[in-house]
Amino acid sequence: MTRFRVGVLGAGTVGAAFVDLLPRQADRIERMTGLRPELSGVLTTRSGSFDEILENSDLIVELIGGLEPAREYLLAAMRAGRHVVTANKQLLSHHGEELWDAARERGVQLRFEGAVAGVVPVIRVLQESLAGATIDRVHGIVNGTTNFILTEMARTGATFAQALADAQRLGYAEADPSDDVNGRDAAAKMAIIARLAFETPVHIDQVPYEGIEQIQPDDLEYARDLGLGLKLIGTAERVGTDGISVRVYPAFLYPGHPLASVNGPFNAVTVESEAITEITMSGPGAGGPQTASAVLGDVISAMIPPASTPPATERLQIVSDVVSSFYLHLEVADEPGVLAAVAQVLALQDVSVKSVVQKGMRDQARLVMVVHPVLESRFAAAMDLIGALEIMRAPPRAIRVIEEEFV
Amino acid sequence: MTRFRVGVLGAGTVGAAFVDLLPRQADRIERMTGLRPELSGVLTTRSGSFDEILENSDLIVELIGGLEPAREYLLAAMRAGRHVVTANKQLLSHHGEELWDAARERGVQLRFEGAVAGVVPVIRVLQESLAGATIDRVHGIVNGTTNFILTEMARTGATFAQALADAQRLGYAEADPSDDVNGRDAAAKMAIIARLAFETPVHIDQVPYEGIEQIQPDDLEYARDLGLGLKLIGTAERVGTDGISVRVYPAFLYPGHPLASVNGPFNAVTVESEAITEITMSGPGAGGPQTASAVLGDVISAMIPPASTPPATERLQIVSDVVSSFYLHLEVADEPGVLAAVAQVLALQDVSVKSVVQKGMRDQARLVMVVHPVLESRFAAAMDLIGALEIMRAPPRAIRVIEEEFV
Repeated sequence: MTRFRVGVLGAGTVGAAFVDLLPRQADRIERMTGLRPELSGVLTTRSGSFDEILENSDLIVELIGGLEPAREYLLAAMRAGRHVVTANKQLLSHHGEELWDAARERGVQLRFEGAVAGVVPVIRVLQESLAGATIDRVHGIVNGTTNFILTEMARTGATFAQALADAQRLGYAEADPSDDVNGRDAAAKMAIIARLAFETPVHIDQVPYEGIEQIQPDDLEYARDLGLGLKLIGTAERVGTDGISVRVYPAFLYPGHPLASVNGPFNAVTVESEAITEITMSGPGAGGPQTASAVLGDVISAMIPPASTPPATERLQIVSDVVSSFYLHLEVADEPGVLAAVAQVLALQDVSVKSVVQKGMRDQARLVMVVHPVLESRFAAAMDLIGALEIMRAPPRAIRVIEEEFV
Repeated sequence: MTRFRVGVLGAGTVGAAFVDLLPRQADRIERMTGLRPELSGVLTTRSGSFDEILENSDLIVELIGGLEPAREYLLAAMRAGRHVVTANKQLLSHHGEELWDAARERGVQLRFEGAVAGVVPVIRVLQESLAGATIDRVHGIVNGTTNFILTEMARTGATFAQALADAQRLGYAEADPSDDVNGRDAAAKMAIIARLAFETPVHIDQVPYEGIEQIQPDDLEYARDLGLGLKLIGTAERVGTDGISVRVYPAFLYPGHPLASVNGPFNAVTVESEAITEITMSGPGAGGPQTASAVLGDVISAMIPPASTPPATERLQIVSDVVSSFYLHLEVADEPGVLAAVAQVLALQDVSVKSVVQKGMRDQARLVMVVHPVLESRFAAAMDLIGALEIMRAPPRAIRVIEEEFV
């Protein structure tokens, strides 16, 4: 068993989640990579020595945040030949070129998926999947706090202050939310995105930004009349042949825009390119476990050569009978007792009705219903019984229904 | 200058698009990787020799499709130590384990982003970004033809046959659409997705599938009453502790589901995992240029070590004045000529009004308008002039509007 030693700098929300996640996934990672990841140390404000952790690590994960000493630690780790993974957007939007240069000079990996949009894989997609595409524009909702607040304001008519208080109560905004609500956090992320999309150095100070503090409830009300939804949007786009613009401000979206349906604390990024039309990616933009998962994806990538599909280490059984919800469409005789007859057959097979619409049509009627999740074999048995009923005027039709999730 | 020689097998839609794309991106790829990609040969049904192309290539791109000779060629290329890239879903869903084993044994890369959902980066995200997450379920709209047909049926009330004819006329369905509309194409893609998500071998014959040929217009009509939208959905999910289920069938989605708003020929995939909640990715699922772009992303990944952020090779100018559309909110005196005064100032700065709502409120009125895209400096000048008008009862408020795109 070969070990792969991971040193962690920082023990905040993401650091704690990462330290919890790594050992739980160690068996799987060992099966995939042939290397067993192990924590070699955690540097906190109260304990641990950076030099000692560096000495005992193959890779350093930086989750301290801020500019110093994070910058100094990352440079020292790369100079010592260690791969590094960071989720530090401030640092990369200030000193990205220095850090990327250092990684290339030393031939080590510097990965930073967790720095932008949490687990939404925008960094990897820009750097790798779209390496062969000329990108024209990126639009992003890259701050979950402001998207939650704007969603609440639109949904409830609340003022900015009320919605912010809700966000703080629910853990979607920090005690000091300034950099989130004034747009600066999003500007740092857009600087990093623009650097990758356009191969041009972009410093956060080159990104003008506005926040959402000035948004009034009646802006949202009138916008709804006009069919528009409000988001804090980061834009990075080509302008003419040799220019780009990178900026962050609240903007209304028409309902057909791929970001218009991104609500609550989610993040999303749309990448536009003539060759590919557009790709949109969305998911939770922050949160300890989510960002820790993005960081762990980076760690694993640093452990293995790219795109070696690991052997099929599992032999899970492939199940044929599963639980589904169904839409059921019946053409029946329009006579008393029809609904009762159908309901009785369904109940026999433990199929429970969620909603039903009955509509008379001359001498026959149409019954359309949605049933609660049930084992498909039970539903099929009910369909056979219903199909054999004398009241049926056509074979029953059924289509599966996928329930709303994460709402 | 070091060359990187790419041999292409197949000259169909994707092959032709790739052969067109590679030289156009060669300069950029050379700046990024230090290697200049060059076409070393193209094997068509009428010309070229596989052995000769293999001899002269560092990497082989397989775009022939079907099982043989694609399988034989890929195995021979890997045995000869070449990296390979393929977009062949049939082959991988039949002989994936044999091919992945060969790649690991020979220490070469086998990449296949183009095989599933075109440019939507589901393969890379499953294999790399989510390598550290235990995946619970994947839902996918992985066939653009059927999604286009279902979108048309819902939008226009057309029958399946009518919508299919439209799809064929517009190039979204092939002359023989059988494998698309009967669900088999989607089943092949879900077999590959399930293999990656659950590390378990999955053969296409283990994936039950249904198509959309039986869908009736009134199913869609009733479903709309129930608030549901219909998609051809592939599902791959854990069942119990040691089982998975992989299947494809038409299913209704509630409006809150992340795939519910994916319309037309687009593909999308939602990956669910306790740690990350969910990620959704969407984009064009097919098309020569789009799939060729995914293939080129794979080629570039095989050329460079992972995640080495390339030097900032561009020095694009960062532009400060850009073109935007605006929402404009004005509290004005409720007297004759107010709208005319505002309109005159806007016209002076070439700001053109797209829509306007005026609402009286006792002694004052509210004017809410959306203006067409205009240089922001012109709009700001108009705002200054409007703010100075005597009729204003409060400072004007403006919020940018992002136009609907790709509709």
